[in-house]
Amino acid sequence: LSLLDQLARKAEIINAELQRLIRSWGFPDPIDKAIQYIVESGGKRIRPILALLSCEAVGGEDEVAMQAAIAVELIHNASLLWDDVIDRDDLRRGKITVHKKWDKNIAILAGAMLTSKAIELISDQPELLDMFLKGIGKMIEGQVLDITGNLESSAKLFDSKSEKEIFEILRSRFRQKAFDGMEWDESGESQLITEFTEFEEERDYFEMISLKTSSLLKLATRIGAILGGGTAKEIDALAKYGFYLGLAFQIRDDLIGITSDELTLGKPVGSDIRQGKLNLFTIFALRNLDNDALSDLLKIMKDNLTNSTIVKVRKILDRCGALNYASDKLELIAQTARNSLTDLEDSDPKKILQQFITFIIERKF
Amino acid sequence: LSLLDQLARKAEIINAELQRLIRSWGFPDPIDKAIQYIVESGGKRIRPILALLSCEAVGGEDEVAMQAAIAVELIHNASLLWDDVIDRDDLRRGKITVHKKWDKNIAILAGAMLTSKAIELISDQPELLDMFLKGIGKMIEGQVLDITGNLESSAKLFDSKSEKEIFEILRSRFRQKAFDGMEWDESGESQLITEFTEFEEERDYFEMISLKTSSLLKLATRIGAILGGGTAKEIDALAKYGFYLGLAFQIRDDLIGITSDELTLGKPVGSDIRQGKLNLFTIFALRNLDNDALSDLLKIMKDNLTNSTIVKVRKILDRCGALNYASDKLELIAQTARNSLTDLEDSDPKKILQQFITFIIERKF
Repeated sequence: LSLLDQLARKAEIINAELQRLIRSWGFPDPIDKAIQYIVESGGKRIRPILALLSCEAVGGEDEVAMQAAIAVELIHNASLLWDDVIDRDDLRRGKITVHKKWDKNIAILAGAMLTSKAIELISDQPELLDMFLKGIGKMIEGQVLDITGNLESSAKLFDSKSEKEIFEILRSRFRQKAFDGMEWDESGESQLITEFTEFEEERDYFEMISLKTSSLLKLATRIGAILGGGTAKEIDALAKYGFYLGLAFQIRDDLIGITSDELTLGKPVGSDIRQGKLNLFTIFALRNLDNDALSDLLKIMKDNLTNSTIVKVRKILDRCGALNYASDKLELIAQTARNSLTDLEDSDPKKILQQFITFIIERKF
Repeated sequence: LSLLDQLARKAEIINAELQRLIRSWGFPDPIDKAIQYIVESGGKRIRPILALLSCEAVGGEDEVAMQAAIAVELIHNASLLWDDVIDRDDLRRGKITVHKKWDKNIAILAGAMLTSKAIELISDQPELLDMFLKGIGKMIEGQVLDITGNLESSAKLFDSKSEKEIFEILRSRFRQKAFDGMEWDESGESQLITEFTEFEEERDYFEMISLKTSSLLKLATRIGAILGGGTAKEIDALAKYGFYLGLAFQIRDDLIGITSDELTLGKPVGSDIRQGKLNLFTIFALRNLDNDALSDLLKIMKDNLTNSTIVKVRKILDRCGALNYASDKLELIAQTARNSLTDLEDSDPKKILQQFITFIIERKF
């Protein structure tokens, strides 16, 4: 069986379980339909698949991790509902978003309901509860940082300053080297990102995606390993694997968001740039571009992005080496994720987990 | 000590505990400030006070219920954050709402964070978890019904129909007698509202407020009684008390919303009418008004409410007996709440719980 076939088989089991569960809830309309809709609109079921594989990789039967795996997927879907309202995107995975199809209020409450139901699923396993709540909290913190950490001050930045002054401010801000001994968030995970972080703004970016994206992937692999009866060493290895895979997943997501086309992406290209959100390649560009290119880029980030300007942005980012820079970091992080698995005994599920990394960093959508 | 003094003393302890807790979280800005703001903007701390009193009424020390009491208050504040985004209100308790002061996204995520933190507070008490999750789920269901259950079809109703036809449709809809043996929601609480329900539309209203408002008040009194070591009979009595008190609280809230003034209310008068939301007195009015008054009322409900039309609405509702009808039901429900306490042994906290009912149904804001 190929990797994709194996993943598809797992996804099928997960989908059947999700369907059975949602039908059993019997919520009033339209919350029922909205939840049905967001969960059905698919996604790759990456998180629950990782939970099941992690369980198997330490020798467990995947059924013992099924409820917890489904719970992580529900929380992920809740975060998508909120995310869509926040980003005001009209499309997700090529389908109209819930807040557009129904109402933003329905999206907010359906998200809250999914979170509550997810916790209910694992509420008979008190040893998991704390991990779940911490995971949810971190994910939400990440969403907050994602909203507030964009180039929001651009309006202020441009006010009554010459272009030259603006560039000076930007460059000094983005060229600040991060160094050992500087203040890090004390989440314990900060040390895991130091090795990929050369500049201060990158640290903020990595901290944000650690929270927003890695939290749930790490939760998935960690609980999978715990429920499968893994040793402390195995659990730690799989937790780290999930964490790094999350970073890689997000960086790949950012890259796809600018290099793909709308049809493949299922939503408009460059929505990060539109919202002034920073990521590895925009941070690189703001640090390294010459004045002319910087002027072009900032103008485009300030104004509306059209299909013709997106081509221009892509060229600017490509030519200055920003896209390569992000790709190199992605490869480095993927390698670190692979290395995390060294301590695990060889097995089929371990092999799938290794292939999974390649699948993530090479995916086109 | 007067009732108000005793309540104020409890509220003070609760506020100190809330402050200590929020400071301990150390969330990133602005979620930190937004949570600080919504929790500080006060409210009467009715739910945690009820939890503490219920605990004492069965002979427990109130400290044993403190964490759970605080957790209920956090969930209540989460629901307020979502509610404000949903209703698009700009004011709550006379202060600018969080989604206006910061951003609707911050309000959504701060609500999710508060819910998660509330569950964390009681996560070491697995016997409470299921009750909390059910309470949260019901409260959210109630919020959904509150959004979707308004006179939303009014636009459709008015399309290409003569006024006379519209009135016929409305009256037939609102005059349908609810009768024994009709289909009820199987929540187990439905039987508690049958005795107050004469008409079908009233049933929908009572089901909605049972979920939206009674859920958390019942949760508060029930967990208070459980943690205080109450007998099954005592726990049941206090749960029922909380349930009925919730109904009374909401009906009083609806009445205040139309009879008060903006300064006392801390937000615009008549916002339910503006949004076409149904409650006991609007349902009564739609059933009983003559054609002229009905025509006036529907026109006002369709258009924007101004300070002069609100006086007119109030007169219409008063003259047809709608406000008296709602007040009578309120009194009946309050009496049922009082009767729920019969099984409890006499004590000071029981006396306060009894007085609390009067406090709720006579409050002006």
